[in-house]
Amino acid sequence: MLVLVTYDVNTETPEGKRRLRLVARACVRKGRRVQSSVFECLLNSAEFISLKHELSGIVDQEHDSLRFYNLGNEYRSKIEVIGTDRGYDPSDTLMI
Amino acid sequence: MLVLVTYDVNTETPEGKRRLRLVARACVRKGRRVQSSVFECLLNSAEFISLKHELSGIVDQEHDSLRFYNLGNEYRSKIEVIGTDRGYDPSDTLMI
Repeated sequence: MLVLVTYDVNTETPEGKRRLRLVARACVRKGRRVQSSVFECLLNSAEFISLKHELSGIVDQEHDSLRFYNLGNEYRSKIEVIGTDRGYDPSDTLMI
Repeated sequence: MLVLVTYDVNTETPEGKRRLRLVARACVRKGRRVQSSVFECLLNSAEFISLKHELSGIVDQEHDSLRFYNLGNEYRSKIEVIGTDRGYDPSDTLMI
């Protein structure tokens, strides 16, 4: 299933800037960054639970916001892009 | 249907900052801001077409990114939030 992860991390403090880096790093490991704080992650249920657990351990729940949108398996028809698009379809074969 | 609108606008120029304001203003008229550049908009098909048309007329398609995620009508079970949540369910009755 494709899970969209969006976040707002309060970066007014050095600690906030560190949380932002950690959140982004965790998401990069699991998916594709499509905008500065928007990631598309192809995950099974266990991976989704694990990612939520990891991210909730990083953020400050009083000041930061994490949102997860589950687009299911038939996600392609649900996504439209205008303007720049950062890269590849997460489920495409990556030719190296 | 609930449409998620996410955007990255290049604000390196004054013109970019202006585009950012106009995009946000257009989205505020149609939905709920849940994160700095993430909006949840309850739209019918005609409204969705109209919003896309309006936003594509604002952005610089070479430098900005607009993404639309159609979550359909049964969207509540597809959304999870960790941390701060900016407000109300878009389809709830607003008591004034």
